[in-house]
Amino acid sequence: MRTIEWKGDAVYFIDQTKLPRRLIIAKCDDHEELARAIENMKIRGAPALGVAAAMGIALAAKNSKGKTADEIKSDLVAASKRIRSTRPTARNLFWGLERMERVWRREKDPSKLIDRVIKEAGIIADEDVQLCRGIGRHGAELIFDGDNILTHCNAGGLACVEYGTALGVIRSAVAGGKKVFVYATETRPLLQGARLTAFELKSEGIPFKLITDNMVGYVMQKGLVDKVVVGADRITKRGDVINKIGTYGIAVLARAHGIPFYVAAPSSTIDLLVRSEEIEIEERKAEEVTTVCGKSIAPRGTDVLNPAFDLTPKELVSAIITEKGVAYPPYDLSVLLGKS
Amino acid sequence: MRTIEWKGDAVYFIDQTKLPRRLIIAKCDDHEELARAIENMKIRGAPALGVAAAMGIALAAKNSKGKTADEIKSDLVAASKRIRSTRPTARNLFWGLERMERVWRREKDPSKLIDRVIKEAGIIADEDVQLCRGIGRHGAELIFDGDNILTHCNAGGLACVEYGTALGVIRSAVAGGKKVFVYATETRPLLQGARLTAFELKSEGIPFKLITDNMVGYVMQKGLVDKVVVGADRITKRGDVINKIGTYGIAVLARAHGIPFYVAAPSSTIDLLVRSEEIEIEERKAEEVTTVCGKSIAPRGTDVLNPAFDLTPKELVSAIITEKGVAYPPYDLSVLLGKS
Repeated sequence: MRTIEWKGDAVYFIDQTKLPRRLIIAKCDDHEELARAIENMKIRGAPALGVAAAMGIALAAKNSKGKTADEIKSDLVAASKRIRSTRPTARNLFWGLERMERVWRREKDPSKLIDRVIKEAGIIADEDVQLCRGIGRHGAELIFDGDNILTHCNAGGLACVEYGTALGVIRSAVAGGKKVFVYATETRPLLQGARLTAFELKSEGIPFKLITDNMVGYVMQKGLVDKVVVGADRITKRGDVINKIGTYGIAVLARAHGIPFYVAAPSSTIDLLVRSEEIEIEERKAEEVTTVCGKSIAPRGTDVLNPAFDLTPKELVSAIITEKGVAYPPYDLSVLLGKS
Repeated sequence: MRTIEWKGDAVYFIDQTKLPRRLIIAKCDDHEELARAIENMKIRGAPALGVAAAMGIALAAKNSKGKTADEIKSDLVAASKRIRSTRPTARNLFWGLERMERVWRREKDPSKLIDRVIKEAGIIADEDVQLCRGIGRHGAELIFDGDNILTHCNAGGLACVEYGTALGVIRSAVAGGKKVFVYATETRPLLQGARLTAFELKSEGIPFKLITDNMVGYVMQKGLVDKVVVGADRITKRGDVINKIGTYGIAVLARAHGIPFYVAAPSSTIDLLVRSEEIEIEERKAEEVTTVCGKSIAPRGTDVLNPAFDLTPKELVSAIITEKGVAYPPYDLSVLLGKS
C-alpha cells in the first residue's frame, strides 16, 4: 500500500494524524485541500512532501479553467505559491514544485500540458519507491547482523511513498537476512515515532522497543545501541543535516558514546543553494506542545518553544546514504547527487 | 502551602497526579495508603519522599495496636519494610526511614515512643523547608542577573515540603533581585515539567518556556541557555548523580556546549555506602510510555523501556549544591555532609 497515490482524478493518502488507531485513506480533489493536509501533517515526511507537492500541481492543472497554456500556467504558478507556503523547511517540497515547473514551463499545448503534468507526478511517485529501495540497498551494507539501531521520528514508508529512508535501510538489512533490533524514540511533540514508526515496525515484524526522547542517553550509556539511522528534511551544501527536532541531541549523544550516526535520504533532500544559517526552521503552534491527543498537559497559557526541526552539523554525521551511494566525510555532495 | 503535612492524626498531601488541572489535597490515615500514594506518584520528589517515609512511620505508630514498646516496634519494622518497597532509587526515602528508626529503636516506653515518632516526622518536615532555603541561598550565588536556566523534571516545592531544590535556587535568585528566565523540559513519561514545574513557575510569576525533552539540544545550540540546574534522587560517594531519566542526556549536551551543569539537593540525598553501579534504577510500567493522560499513543502491545532515572557521572557535573554549601569537583562529599 502506498502512502500517497494519484487515482482517477484525485489524490488518495493515508491520514497520518489518525494512525496507529485508525488507518484512514483520505482524498483530495484540489490543491487547496492538499495544502491544508500538509499543514495539518496529515501528509508528512520529506520525501512524501516532494511527491505531494507534485500531485498538488497535477490537481491544479486538472482543475484549471484556463483555455490557453498561459492561463493554465498562471493557475499553476498560484498553486505552486500556495503549496510552497505550507511548510518552510523540507527541501523535497520545493524540489517537487521545481521539477514540475521544468515540465510545464515550456509546454505550449494546453491539453498536453495537463497530461504531462499529471504524468510527471506519477513518475515522481514511482521514482520515490525506487529511490528508497536504492537507499535501503546502499545503507544495508552499513548494518551488521545483530545490530541494535536507534531511529528518531518516522523516516519510514509513511514518510515516503513506501519502504522509507532510515526504515528502508533497516528493512533492506532485514530482507538480507540480518537480525536487527530497533529503538524507536517517540518523538514529541507529534509522536511520529510512537504512532508511525512503531506501527510500521510492528506490521513488518521487526523487533523494537519504544522509548521516550529523554531515554536516548540512557540506552547509549548502557551499550544498547550500535548505530543511529535517521532521515533528513534538508541536507545543505556544507553537509549539515536538518531533521526532526531532537536529531541534533541524538547526534551529540552518539558522538559522546562513539556510536556511528547515519543519515538516509534521497538526493532530492540535498540543497546546494542555501547556506545552513539561512534555512528557516519552522516554528509550529504551541498547542502541539501543551496538549497530547487533545488533552492539555500544562497550565493554561503556558508559553512554549516549538521548532519542528534542528540542525546537526556535518562533524557529527558519520555518513550520508542516498540512492546514489554512501558518502563519508568530508562529503563530496556531488557524488551523492550523481553529478561526478 | 506545604506539599505534605501532618495534621491531627493523618497525613495530608497535594495529589501530584492531578496537577495542573486540579489542586487536590488528599488524606492518608495509614501507612499502607501512603505507600500506595508513593507508588502511584501522588507523592513524589526525592526530598518529599524522605518526609513521606517519616510520616508513614508516624502513621504506623499511631495506628499500632501494640501494648508494649516491642510490639509497637514490630509494627514499625513491618511499616518500614512496606514503605521501603515502594520505590528503589531515591536515597531520601531510606534516609527518612533510617532516621526514624534511630528515634524509635532505643525508646522503651510505648506512649513516649509514639509521641517521639510523630514529633520526629514533624521535625523532618520543618527541617526540609529550612534545607531548601539553605540550598537556595547557596545556589543563588551561582546564578547571575539575566541568566537563562534550564531545569528538568520538577525539583520544586512540590518535590519537597515547600520551596524546592533546583527551583529553590531559582526562587532564591529571583528573591535576591536577579532576573532569570527558565526553560522547563516537559519530562516524559509523567510530564512533571509540563505539569508541576510549569505550575510552580506560573504561580510565582517567574518567566519561562516549556519545551519537549528533545528540544534541549536546540535551545543550547541557539545559545538560549546559560546554566542547567537540576535536582537529584541519589548522589553517590563518587559524586555521580542519579536523577530523573533524561538528566544524563542534558548533562552531555551541556558539556558539549560549555554550559555549567549544577545539581541541587539536600545532603540526605548523598549515599556514602552504595557504589554507583550497585544502585537499582527503577523500571516502571509500560503504560506510562504508551499512554499520555489515559490516551494510547502507540500500537497495542508495543514493547517499551521505562527506566525512571539515569546516572550522570561526576565528570559532567559542574557543582553540587546542598544546604551546607557548594562543592566543586573533585568533590569532597564530606564537606557537603558537614562532617569535615
